[in-house]
Amino acid sequence: MNVYACSCSSPPVMARFLQRSLSLRTALRHLSPQRTFSSSSSSSSSSSAAAVRRSSLDLHSLFPPSTVSSWQFGVCCRKLHSGTDVSRPSPAAAPDRLPFSSITQEDLTFFREILPGRTITDPDLLESSNVDWLKSVRGSSEVLLRPQTTEEVSQILKYCNSRSLAVSPQGGNTGLVGGSVPVHDEVILSTALMNNITTFDSISGILTCQAGCVLENLSLYLEDRDYIMPLDLGAKGSCHIGGNVATNAGGLRLLRYGSLHGTVLGLEVVLADGRVLDCLATLRKDNTGYDLKQLFIGSEGTLGVITAVSILCPRKPPSVNVVFLGCETFEQLLKTFQLSRGMLGEILSAFEFLDSECMRLLNTHLKLPNPISDCPFYVVIETSGSDPTHDGEKLHNFLEKAMTSSMVTDGTVATEDSKIKALWSMRERVTEALTHDGFNYKYDISLPVERIYQLVTDMREHLGGRAKSVVGYGHVGDGNLHLNITSPAKDPALLASIEPFVYEWTARCHGSISAEHGLGLKKRNYIYYSKPRPAVALMGDIKTLLDPKGILNPYKTLPDDLK
Amino acid sequence: MNVYACSCSSPPVMARFLQRSLSLRTALRHLSPQRTFSSSSSSSSSSSAAAVRRSSLDLHSLFPPSTVSSWQFGVCCRKLHSGTDVSRPSPAAAPDRLPFSSITQEDLTFFREILPGRTITDPDLLESSNVDWLKSVRGSSEVLLRPQTTEEVSQILKYCNSRSLAVSPQGGNTGLVGGSVPVHDEVILSTALMNNITTFDSISGILTCQAGCVLENLSLYLEDRDYIMPLDLGAKGSCHIGGNVATNAGGLRLLRYGSLHGTVLGLEVVLADGRVLDCLATLRKDNTGYDLKQLFIGSEGTLGVITAVSILCPRKPPSVNVVFLGCETFEQLLKTFQLSRGMLGEILSAFEFLDSECMRLLNTHLKLPNPISDCPFYVVIETSGSDPTHDGEKLHNFLEKAMTSSMVTDGTVATEDSKIKALWSMRERVTEALTHDGFNYKYDISLPVERIYQLVTDMREHLGGRAKSVVGYGHVGDGNLHLNITSPAKDPALLASIEPFVYEWTARCHGSISAEHGLGLKKRNYIYYSKPRPAVALMGDIKTLLDPKGILNPYKTLPDDLK
Repeated sequence: MNVYACSCSSPPVMARFLQRSLSLRTALRHLSPQRTFSSSSSSSSSSSAAAVRRSSLDLHSLFPPSTVSSWQFGVCCRKLHSGTDVSRPSPAAAPDRLPFSSITQEDLTFFREILPGRTITDPDLLESSNVDWLKSVRGSSEVLLRPQTTEEVSQILKYCNSRSLAVSPQGGNTGLVGGSVPVHDEVILSTALMNNITTFDSISGILTCQAGCVLENLSLYLEDRDYIMPLDLGAKGSCHIGGNVATNAGGLRLLRYGSLHGTVLGLEVVLADGRVLDCLATLRKDNTGYDLKQLFIGSEGTLGVITAVSILCPRKPPSVNVVFLGCETFEQLLKTFQLSRGMLGEILSAFEFLDSECMRLLNTHLKLPNPISDCPFYVVIETSGSDPTHDGEKLHNFLEKAMTSSMVTDGTVATEDSKIKALWSMRERVTEALTHDGFNYKYDISLPVERIYQLVTDMREHLGGRAKSVVGYGHVGDGNLHLNITSPAKDPALLASIEPFVYEWTARCHGSISAEHGLGLKKRNYIYYSKPRPAVALMGDIKTLLDPKGILNPYKTLPDDLK
Repeated sequence: MNVYACSCSSPPVMARFLQRSLSLRTALRHLSPQRTFSSSSSSSSSSSAAAVRRSSLDLHSLFPPSTVSSWQFGVCCRKLHSGTDVSRPSPAAAPDRLPFSSITQEDLTFFREILPGRTITDPDLLESSNVDWLKSVRGSSEVLLRPQTTEEVSQILKYCNSRSLAVSPQGGNTGLVGGSVPVHDEVILSTALMNNITTFDSISGILTCQAGCVLENLSLYLEDRDYIMPLDLGAKGSCHIGGNVATNAGGLRLLRYGSLHGTVLGLEVVLADGRVLDCLATLRKDNTGYDLKQLFIGSEGTLGVITAVSILCPRKPPSVNVVFLGCETFEQLLKTFQLSRGMLGEILSAFEFLDSECMRLLNTHLKLPNPISDCPFYVVIETSGSDPTHDGEKLHNFLEKAMTSSMVTDGTVATEDSKIKALWSMRERVTEALTHDGFNYKYDISLPVERIYQLVTDMREHLGGRAKSVVGYGHVGDGNLHLNITSPAKDPALLASIEPFVYEWTARCHGSISAEHGLGLKKRNYIYYSKPRPAVALMGDIKTLLDPKGILNPYKTLPDDLK
């Protein structure tokens, strides 16, 4: 096969092509078996890439809370988006306060006795725990508790349960659906001081730690020991592993290492009445009875407070490469995905996409230049393997095939740190670009992979010219679409056109209306679009079984009609 | 590095070494970058290896039920092994019948109406469903129901629940702990006729099928489409995917593709009262509420009857290699495992071991010759990758390093079908060799990987000369030891020396007394060795919530003190 015979060889494209510092063709030569990666340079590139990813993906650094207005993301405490009928509360609105007890001086005295110096009541100090990082949901809690041990969490919950005090468990508070902050005056129970690594077994790769360990700290700890965490996400600089597990966080490595339901080996959980449930196994296999820990993975703190986690960690891959490609149609993009699964096989670690509307926003709002020629669709592919030479050869063969088969019309390969950073930015900074485009309506949809872009196309047609932008990006490998619609300002009429259209469309395709963000406060009442009533009813039964008084993270995850 | 400088070069070893058809050194030359695998031969080798594995691992073909006596495996219905105190029932013994209703003519009339021709009452036809394949547990059911649809299962359970008739769900009846056959006169509900493949998405690799599909049939279906099942086990020719999920089957691919908690994407389950729980999602990501399906994975049919499964399937690897190595100590074996994880990385798909006692039994009882020189420990390593040349190079580099570092003292590599079959036999036929050695006491233990062999050593020392053989083998990669002890005949005094020693030892190391076999009837009362009382109590609460009358697979999984 002749790599130079690809369909992107028309002169105008070629001119731009040649201006780029590391074009796909150069990369192909670079990746050819005759000029393979040297182990040392690739290793350096890999570790720098990891460092680069860390800094560019810290959501808090991208969007300091002070720069985001309360209404910017379409929801707010007590009264969320309300559709066309302003007299009827939106399904996303916070419900009225349930008849829990209110905090008394006696309660504070008790908390101060068991948590001296770690019972926070200063409103200024409470502020950042009462509001989510998007500043889209705000509670009015008067007390923040910062336990250090499981025993302290147990004492707190036993007391709160006996007093019927509602509790809002909080990790890094990086959630996107209002699940991690109080809705009314719930006691905030923070895992921030539960940040000890308990054990790491360098033979099995099994890490055990307290729930409040920051994901990035765990990653750095493991990298020193030649391992990585099986999950990686934008909020890694702030999010806690306990929160990751409680929300079943997805992120960038799910394609390769699978979900937390597979990688979490054990959990320690404090139940609503203070009982400590010790399922903190450090075994890959354990078939003695029901796998109770699974219940708490993704239950968003409504069934128990996770206090410790054991998790299976993969070896750190010595070789990482990133490619940015352009495709003419989504069908070609899917063919490219299929080809990559076959030819990159076991080294494929990410297959992400964005559309030309995303690229326009990146160009316009962030002044990020397109690293390749204009295309309707763009793909970011990452490979992670154990042998830089082999990985380079696989990538070379894949790219040659993709280009000669006209699946891909242009592309570039990153081997230097700055290029890797620039390419990942094209995918990772779409969210940031969107915030500059106007008011955002955000949807996190899971669909059969061949359908994910049809929703964007249908939504564009459905809305006609009423939206400012309708963009699609996300995780192709996971069938996870991030659909975002912008308007110059908050627009109830536009919202009424989007919803329930988006949810009904998703339900017709047997998709999920929340792929990885969870339901929290904002999406709890949309659960029936993805789950049948008997399943939701059973969830309610399980909630009642584990938390009869309903004190744990009330108003979250389960729909109001169950309460 | 000089591959010829390894520690196995002493003349006597060398002489035997040279006689072998494909020694490790030859293999190293064969695997060298200068003489890499050809794509076609490797592909052929791979597919033949799969075929070979299928035939050699079919448990039913290895142990036809007629050749195994009722007491051979140490347990029998009503009265299992009883330790030294014969007056006190063993914790493994079947409990008395609970006060369920008994089958009446009216019941049979009802079943015949909804399942015409598929309501079996002929005792001869019932025989094979009343007894497990080890012939170690025997029930006395008078009716076997063979539904074809979920609706039929729903009607059956609704009726049985209303009549308080106990039900024993049955898949391929290949379990090892007496979980898949009735204990008394439970109605047997077989999934054998629910064997349709519903959909397969060749882009995502997601398969959806009825619960009664035989694992091997699914594997063959997928291989035609360039995919494989994420699990593979000895009983593949008989076991049903629904049973695999209900027992959270482990098997040979867990090291690479993870557990069913990660790969099963959706389940359809009929609850005890006949309600159909539709959690049959075909999505990699879905964070809308609690992940209910997880409850049923590994619950051994006690919480609901699985009627359909959706599962994420990996691409079929074009290149498969198998290596058989010898190590002087278990510490060297662990070092070899660590080295393989680093150097084989993403292509490592199995790391199994057996000890010299296993080899002795293979030699003695099955006349299988040792393919390498005598060593205290043997390892079977399998690689599966997308590029035969790359895989061969990785394997070459790994073997060179393992030998020059003296981790490995001898070895051979299989590239031809017959050699691959012979090497896998050394691991897979240990169970068969054991049955020829006498009465078997079998334990399936999960431990931190660095401790797995210490249990064998300690057991040998503990038993002194009282046992005929004490052997260890299993899945190093999963920390899963199969400890087997033989005696010339059933020996209550020997059993009293083994138990509770083996369980207490395991509990002290925070291991699991059932890594992959489940608890079923035989091990239900040993659950407290691996799970704390609050966890077991919560399991009981969940059982009561989902099956208030306790009709589903009674006497299984949960300990008697919960009933």
